[in-house]
This record gives sequence, structure tokens and C-alpha cells, in this order.
Amino acid sequence: MSDNKTFVIFIIGVSGVGKSTIGNLLSKEFSIPYFDGDDFHSKENVKKMSEGQSLNDKDRQGWLLILNQLAKDQIKTNSCIIACSALKESYRDLLSKGLKTNVKWVLLEGSYDQILERLKIRKGHYMPESLLKSQFETLENPVNALKIDISSTPFEIVETIKNEIFKKSEFGLIGLGVMGKSLSRNLASKGIQLSLFNRHVKGKEENIAINFKNEFSELSEVLPFDDMEAFVNSLQRPRKIMLMVNAGKTVDVVIDNLLLYLSENDVIIDGGNSHFDDTNRRINFLKSKNINFVGAGVSGGEEGALKGPSIMPGGDRNAYKLVQPYLETIAAKDKNNLPCCTYIGKSGSGHFIKMVHNGIEYAEMQLLAEVYFVFRSLGKNPDQIANLLQDWKATTDSFLLEITINILRKKDNEGWLIDQILDKAGNKGTGNWTTVTTAQLGVPSTMIASALFARYLSAFKEERVKMSKLYFDGSSISKINNDDLLKAYQLARLINHHQGFKLLHEASKSYQWDLNLSEIARIWTNGCIIRSTLMEDLTEIFKKTNNLLFDQKIIHQIKNLKESISKIVSQCVLGGIAIPCFSEAINFLNAYINQSSPANLIQAQRDYFGAHTYQKNNDSSDKYYHTNW
Amino acid sequence: MSDNKTFVIFIIGVSGVGKSTIGNLLSKEFSIPYFDGDDFHSKENVKKMSEGQSLNDKDRQGWLLILNQLAKDQIKTNSCIIACSALKESYRDLLSKGLKTNVKWVLLEGSYDQILERLKIRKGHYMPESLLKSQFETLENPVNALKIDISSTPFEIVETIKNEIFKKSEFGLIGLGVMGKSLSRNLASKGIQLSLFNRHVKGKEENIAINFKNEFSELSEVLPFDDMEAFVNSLQRPRKIMLMVNAGKTVDVVIDNLLLYLSENDVIIDGGNSHFDDTNRRINFLKSKNINFVGAGVSGGEEGALKGPSIMPGGDRNAYKLVQPYLETIAAKDKNNLPCCTYIGKSGSGHFIKMVHNGIEYAEMQLLAEVYFVFRSLGKNPDQIANLLQDWKATTDSFLLEITINILRKKDNEGWLIDQILDKAGNKGTGNWTTVTTAQLGVPSTMIASALFARYLSAFKEERVKMSKLYFDGSSISKINNDDLLKAYQLARLINHHQGFKLLHEASKSYQWDLNLSEIARIWTNGCIIRSTLMEDLTEIFKKTNNLLFDQKIIHQIKNLKESISKIVSQCVLGGIAIPCFSEAINFLNAYINQSSPANLIQAQRDYFGAHTYQKNNDSSDKYYHTNW
Repeated sequence: MSDNKTFVIFIIGVSGVGKSTIGNLLSKEFSIPYFDGDDFHSKENVKKMSEGQSLNDKDRQGWLLILNQLAKDQIKTNSCIIACSALKESYRDLLSKGLKTNVKWVLLEGSYDQILERLKIRKGHYMPESLLKSQFETLENPVNALKIDISSTPFEIVETIKNEIFKKSEFGLIGLGVMGKSLSRNLASKGIQLSLFNRHVKGKEENIAINFKNEFSELSEVLPFDDMEAFVNSLQRPRKIMLMVNAGKTVDVVIDNLLLYLSENDVIIDGGNSHFDDTNRRINFLKSKNINFVGAGVSGGEEGALKGPSIMPGGDRNAYKLVQPYLETIAAKDKNNLPCCTYIGKSGSGHFIKMVHNGIEYAEMQLLAEVYFVFRSLGKNPDQIANLLQDWKATTDSFLLEITINILRKKDNEGWLIDQILDKAGNKGTGNWTTVTTAQLGVPSTMIASALFARYLSAFKEERVKMSKLYFDGSSISKINNDDLLKAYQLARLINHHQGFKLLHEASKSYQWDLNLSEIARIWTNGCIIRSTLMEDLTEIFKKTNNLLFDQKIIHQIKNLKESISKIVSQCVLGGIAIPCFSEAINFLNAYINQSSPANLIQAQRDYFGAHTYQKNNDSSDKYYHTNW
Repeated sequence: MSDNKTFVIFIIGVSGVGKSTIGNLLSKEFSIPYFDGDDFHSKENVKKMSEGQSLNDKDRQGWLLILNQLAKDQIKTNSCIIACSALKESYRDLLSKGLKTNVKWVLLEGSYDQILERLKIRKGHYMPESLLKSQFETLENPVNALKIDISSTPFEIVETIKNEIFKKSEFGLIGLGVMGKSLSRNLASKGIQLSLFNRHVKGKEENIAINFKNEFSELSEVLPFDDMEAFVNSLQRPRKIMLMVNAGKTVDVVIDNLLLYLSENDVIIDGGNSHFDDTNRRINFLKSKNINFVGAGVSGGEEGALKGPSIMPGGDRNAYKLVQPYLETIAAKDKNNLPCCTYIGKSGSGHFIKMVHNGIEYAEMQLLAEVYFVFRSLGKNPDQIANLLQDWKATTDSFLLEITINILRKKDNEGWLIDQILDKAGNKGTGNWTTVTTAQLGVPSTMIASALFARYLSAFKEERVKMSKLYFDGSSISKINNDDLLKAYQLARLINHHQGFKLLHEASKSYQWDLNLSEIARIWTNGCIIRSTLMEDLTEIFKKTNNLLFDQKIIHQIKNLKESISKIVSQCVLGGIAIPCFSEAINFLNAYINQSSPANLIQAQRDYFGAHTYQKNNDSSDKYYHTNW
């Protein structure tokens, strides 16, 4: 147990199981106060019980909140022990409310006969034996508790608690790359007792965990490992283990390795950029082994991971509950100080929305790249562009705009750094996955696809150089109105966010995930790469509609912005400046707001050469027609 | 054997195996002439052989071509029988050159001792026994031959040949949907003896094959089945069976069913639009069962299938060879009268290029739809548009342009048919697959993706109607120069074809398929949906380069066309007309011909938030840099 972190240990179980005895012994052992929950019952409750009546849930609620407040007050200065039957999950939820990771549960277990015997020899207790049976029936298995058989002596029980809770870590993390290291420091700085594992690869990855521990003062209490079995055994059960390893095959290898040592109800969290199909598969596979698996998207990059990322956990809701306090503790906080972490939905939905987050990010980055390109074509230098963009922040702020300004201002002794960077964009796959997924789901996320393809085309640098010699006669735009460009940027961002959230909404319908778009926007308002003032607005808008383009305020904005983006795209096309993502934005809008499309010709062509049939305008009966053309 | 089709039956095998005996008996049985190949040897060859020397391949070549000519002359009027050892595959290739499906092979087989015995008791033959051993060593197994053991009596052997060749079909086809029926009529009209199978589904698909046979006179010789075992047993071995069933699970079900009855070396051709990954899988699976599998893309729609489609077969080259005469016979012919069918490459390459064919088709259709939409926005009616497009044919002809004109002119008593068709485009998946594949391969096929997404967006008709009420204030373009629109269309088609063939080229590198782009363009010049005068040009261009934009003639064209597409896109964007595919064309060109892209900013952003590193302009060492921004 960390020196500077305080805990409340709830000793729970049915009446007569020995909670007071163990609580008192623990109190002496660790010199921390012990409270008997029963001492905090109202007079009404005591009376009811001594008359042989069970308390109902309403009777209990006030009492449990008193104990919860007691715990909160105590842990400000001290750890403490509280004994309380806490038989139901809902009671434990009340007891631990707001206590985050500062709660430990110890369940004392015995057979009905064993406890009945104890009750019979007990004096002065107001609990009639008649209530014991009802207590056994009421007890809901607390998966998150340390469970101890009362056949052992009290001293043995205290020893067990000491070993299992006070000498073991609460949380484990595997994989000390850039993100894993930052998350570990984040966890440790919140007082969470950590075990860290990094594999041993001779000559390449040696003593990674121990060296990392020694590097940062906040890691002084961390237990470092390169032996998987020892790592797993260093964790309190049910174990909570976060994987921060490369997506793909590595995740499966690590899981297979972990399975040798894990026990029932342990939880694995995959915090990497795994494909949601893989996450679906892993959840099902691990369910068959009684292991919980949470697929959690984590966005924020190195700094976000350290200071508070946006976390998007998906999977079984009960599995999430076991790790919720940890994830919420390390997540960024929104403007209302709520964690930028929320349960997304079942199966691979967490990784799905992280994928779409990255897709939106691709288009946001491409739009800024196109803005930059237009300004460069006008002859402006990086500092001048940074100054112009600085002014945009007043109306259109975002993390990506912010870092773009910083990037443009960065100089070394060879001049602006941006001018030294090779214009071949890389990608790690999530933009590709989003494009593939949107194609497969039948949703037109044209801007994400366009941003992906712009990166691909940039990568054909050698061909571009060759082509430029054969074709290029200079691109030229003499004037662009800065305000038009800002408005074009604003409109394109609205379309990009519409398309991204539309993809989430359609996926939610296809996969029956019941995604809450407003909550998703909310956890993207801080910590993550696409955080922005627009995202704050979307949190409100998606409370009322699933299609942001149906919102009155947005309609008004778009009507004001449309002429500017049309002008910008037109000028760039005429001037030979490639602005594929801006072009997609206005073309999508023009097609979307027109009730007529030329798809009737496509239907006619398909019927002409392939007898694919078509529907008619004036026939809403879903009847299909074929013409002998 | 069809009444009006003539055959040459080559009786082959080593000397002394009894070719003359069987040839003569067959000749009498069927009243067709018999020729002993040895009678056609030059004096030089005869002399060499009687001196105990083996003939070399050069000695044989002239002789084999004489026999080939003999066969060609004969089958103009008559079937015939020719005996000839034909031990090597290359000899058989010469013998059967140009004979297409009019060749039957019968291999007489016996053991060395058996034949040596026969040679010893034979008189007046110039073949010394010493050559027999070398003949056995030379014999290459003719997988396409009927093999008969000479232990039977000559009369039994003749009976076997009669049953196996004269009473069985050459080619089988499964699945009598629109395409299957058209291909069957095509096959039958070429005199190919066919067995047809369609499943029996009570109340839904009953007596399909027999009813179909009775419907068309060219099918009078066809053997119809709805029993799979009888169907398979009606085919000459090695069996050649073409599947024209729905792509997907059905193909696997039919294969599993067929496997109960097939024998070694039989060939299955999948003529449906299967995904190339499935074809890869099936080829490997069937190889383990010694069954050949050819994945053949077939394009042409209903009419093409009937009159001659473009066929794109991929898989094992030897497997293809077994079915080559049939596929080439039914394929369309190019302007030089060569079949629009060529071996594409190994594994699923045939279905891959069919997929890309359809991707190109999507963009070609979308471009015509956008042209139509622009003309409609200018207030032109369908007949006026058809007249304008009619003029485009002189320079820019294609099948799709042709049918578009016909469609626009089609009227019924409610007016133009095009105006009655609902503007929600359907899709059968190949455009989706192409977009997915291009994203996965890292190739920017932006126009195909754009065409796909335009169809998707059209399908959100109800939302478009709603949006139009909220946003639409009329699109307006007052004037468009018809010649500019034609030029824009020409340029966009060049970019579309560039992107499609580029995808093939990059896939060929990734999968080591060694695709011949010129040959692919050639087989797309007729029969298929994207046939056009441009495709004729590409056949020549791809003989010299793998990138059509590097061709001098194309460079000249594009420079002439670029201003027009820029004007058209600019005018449409300003006028509120969605032209996503045209926009992609010009944006792609503008990006591709510029040696600079703004991807340096994207690289900087990625390094800023994710430490993804970047390369530098002035460092060609592949070194990666990271900045502490």
C-alpha cells in the first residue's frame, strides 16, 4: 500500500461471520481506526431488526450513505476499516460512491451451519437467528472482493489480508513503450499501487521495467517485472491488467502467456489501437475462460497519456465496472470535472469509436494541411501562417490547430523546421480501417477516405517528382480572402464531424450498440487529439439529435459558411491547388441537401446491362421494375 | 457429340500400344476417316527411325504441323481419327493448335513388358524395340485425355471410347440465373456439348434445366439435370464445370456437393463475382483434393454473356489450359479477332481484376451521372441530353455512353422513363470491395471510392428530402460550355483509368502476380461493360509503360483538357451542383503533378502528439527524426 494513498477496507459478509473480530485485529495490526457499521444504524433500524424484521432497501439507504461519508472523511487523513454486511451490489455501490480506487473489499465466508453455530453462542447481539437465512439468500457475490474462509483462525485471516491487500499491487500494466510509460506515470502519480511488466529481449529490451522505475520519483513504490508469472502473482485478485502493447498479433501472444497464470474474474484491458473485430473475438474467447476483457481506446498521445487521456472502454459492462475507478482516475477531466471516460457499449465498441476518432482526426489534420498549403501558395511563410491561424483560435479553437501553430513557429539553425520535413505522410492503420469500415457499412464518410488517400498519394513522392517534371506549370492563386478560408475550414469541420458521428450512429444501429453520441462527444472534449470547442458544442447538440446537421444552430452556421467554401474550392481548383478534403466537404453538402440525385441514371444503367431492376418515384410499395431497354 | 460439330480424335500412346487397331475400328464404328500419323512422316524421319535413332523435337515439328493441318482440313466437313504417339505436351500443343474445342484425346496405356511382347510378335514395322524405353521415358501425362488400359479387347476399348466421348458432354454448367442461361446458350451455339444443372427447390426452382433446354432451339443437344451425381457422371473426364451461382457461401456449398462425385484433375471454374480472397482460399483447398479451380471474372452482363463476354481467368496455369478452348470460344473477340480472354495470373488474380473492372465501371457510371446532372441543372430534357451525348461519341465512344444515350431516349406513355426512376442507387458489393482493397493496399483510387460513396449517399433518400427542406435554396448554373464538359469528362476518364490500372499494378507487385496491363486492357476492349475507344488506346500504351500518365500522347491530351475540368468543377461548386467524382479527378491530378504536398505538416503533427517521427528533405538515408516540440 502506497505511503501517501489512504484506503477504506470494508469487511463484509453475513451477520455472525466475524467482521468485528477481524476488523479489530486489523486495526491494531496497522494502527488505523476501525468502525463497526452497525453502530451507525438509526434507532428505527435497530428497533426493526430487534423485532425480527428484515430491513428493506429504503431503511438501508441512509445508513449506507452515512458509512460512505464516514469513509470519505476518514481517508482524507487516514486509512480505516469499516465492518458492514453489504450483501448486495447496490449497497456496495452506495458505500463506495466517489471513493474511486481507495476502496478494498474483504468478504468473510462461512457455511450456514458454521455461522448459525456462532450466532447461537453469541450474546447481546440484536440479530435474531431467524434473519440469517434471509441474509444468505440476499448475498450477491462481490467479484471485486478478497474472499476469506472463516475456518482459519483470526490471526491467519489477518495475515492473509495483509499479504493479499497490503503487499500486492492494485493494478498491472504490460508494455512500456511511449504510451505505456506515460500511462504508468499517470497511474502512479494518482497513488495507485502498480506492477509493471515489460518483456525481456536479450540485447534489445533488458531491465526495461526496473530502469523505468528508477528513472521517475513517482514510480518509487512500483513493482517492476520481466517475469510474467511473478508479475501476475504480484496483483490483488481479481487482477486488473492493462495491455499497452502493439495492436495485432502481439496482443494475442501476451494474452496466451497471461492465461497460464490468471484466475477467474481477472480483467484484461487492451489499451492499444486494436481492430474492433479482434476485440470482439478476444472478448468471446476469454469469456469461455472466465476472464474479463475490456477493449479500451486511449487517445491523447504521449502527453495525453501522462496528464490524462480520453478513454473509450467497451465490452461487458460488469467487466468495465471492475476497472472503472482506475480508468476514470487517470482520464482527462471535462469542463465539469467529469472524467473523459465512459462505458461505450458491448463487444468491440470502445475500439470502434477510437478508430472513428482517428478517422475524424485524419480529416481534421488534412484540412489543416490544405489550409497551410493554400497559404503557402499565396507566398506566406510559416510564421505568417501561424499568426493568421492564431486569430482563428478565437472562434475555432482545437488541440490540432494549437499544435499546428506551434509547429509552424518552430525553428532551428537551418530555419523553419516544417520546411525541412519530407512531405510523405505515414499512417498506422486506423484511417485505413475507418475507410474500410465505412465502405462496408454503406456510410459515405467521404472526408476520412479523402484524407487517407491524400496521405497515400503523398507517399508516392518519387512519382510526384517525375509527374511534376512532365506536367507542372505552376499553381497560381493570387488572392484568397482569409475570412473565406476560415469559414471554409469551419464548414468542412462541421461536415467531417457529421460524417464521423453519422458513421458511429449507423454502426450503433448495425451492431446494436446503443451508442450515446453526446457522451462520446463529451469524453472527446478533453484529453484526446480531436478535442475542440466544436466538440463542446456537439456534446449539447447530440443530446437532442443524432444528426448534427438537423440542429437549428448548425443549419444557421452552415448557411452562413457555404458561400465561402464554394469560393475557396473554386479558386483552388482553378489555381491548380489540390484541396481534396475541402472539395469532398462541399460536394457532400451539395449532394446531401438536394432531394434529387442522378442515381436514377445509375439505376437505369444497372438495369440496362445487368437486369438489376429499379424502383419508381411514384411507387412507394418497394416494388422493383425491369425494362427491356 | 453434337450433330453439327466435328471432332478430331487423336489416339495417342507409345509405339506398339495398338493405336492403328483402335483407330481402324473406331473409323468403321462411326463411319469417319482414320489416318495413321506415321504415314505422314518425311522420308528423312523414316530413315532415321529405321536406323534405330530417336527423332529429335526439330525432326518432329514439321510432321506435327502437317497432322495439325490435316485435322483442320478434315473437321471443316467431317470428324476424323488420327493416330500419333504425341508423347509430349508440346507435341500435343502443336497437334491441337487452333482446333479449339474440336479435339479429343485418347491415351492407350499398357505396361512396358506388355508392349514389348506385342512389338516382338509384330512384323514389318520400322520401329526397333530399342526405342521403346525412350518412349516410355518421354511420355508426359496428358491430363486432358481419356485413358484406356489395353488389357481390354479392342472391341471393349471402342465401346469405352463411344461411351466416354460420344455419349458424354464436354462441358458442364451449374446455376441457370440470368448470366448462367446466357452463357449456356453461348456455349451451345458454338457446338459445345453441354450438361446443365440447376438445383431443385420445391415450389421455387423446379425443372429449371429441362424447361430451359426446351425453350431454345440451340439447346436441343443439351443434357439437363437437377441431380448432381447424374450431372457429374454425364461429363467427360477430366470434367470441366463452370459455376454461375451467387458469390459467397453458395459457391462453397456447391463445391462441397460436387466434391462427392468429382475425380482427380477435374476443373471447376467459378464464373461469378467472387471475392479474390475466397478464390485464393478455394484454390488451396481444392488443390489438397487434386481438383483444379479457376476463378474467372466474367463481364458483359446478360447480353455480353450471350454474345461473348470478356473473361478474366486466374489460378493455376495448367488448370486454365484444360478449359482455355472453351472460355476462348465463348469470349468476345477484339478488333484483331483475338478472344477477350487471357490467362491473368495465379491465385485469385482473375477475380481481383474483375473486381477492379467493376470499380472502374462505378466511376465511369458516376461520371456520366454527373454529366447528366449538370445538363439537367441547365434545364435540358433527356432527349436534348441524348443528342448532345450523341455528338460525344465521335471522340469518346464507350459502351456506357452508348447505353446512356439509349436510356435517355426511352419513353413510355408516362414520358421519359429516366424521370420515373427512383434516385437511390443499389450496389452488389464489387465497388465496395475495390474501395476496401485500395485502402488496404495503400493506393489512392479516389474516384472509385467517390463513386461508391455517391451511391451510398443517394441511398439516404429520406434524409436528403429532409435536408433539402432545411437547407436547399436551389442550385443554379446558368451556363456551361458543352465542349468544356466533354473535355472534363475525357480528363476524368483518363484519371479513372489511371487509378484503376495503377491499383492493378500495385496489387501485382504486392501479390507477385506479374499482371500484363496491356493484355488486361485488350480483353476489356470488347464484351465487357467498360469497353471503349480509350481502352483500345490503353492496350497500346501499356505495352510501353505501366503508368498511363507517363505516356507522351496522354500528357499532351491532359494538358489540353485540364483547364476545362477546372472550369467545370469550379462552376458546379459555385452553383451548388454536387460533382464529387469530377472533383476527385482534378484534385488527384493537381496533387499528383505537384512534387510538393502539405504532408510535411501532417508528419509534424504526428510527431508532435504521437512521437511518430519524420524524415527530412535533405537526408535520403531513410533516417527518422523526432523533435521535442
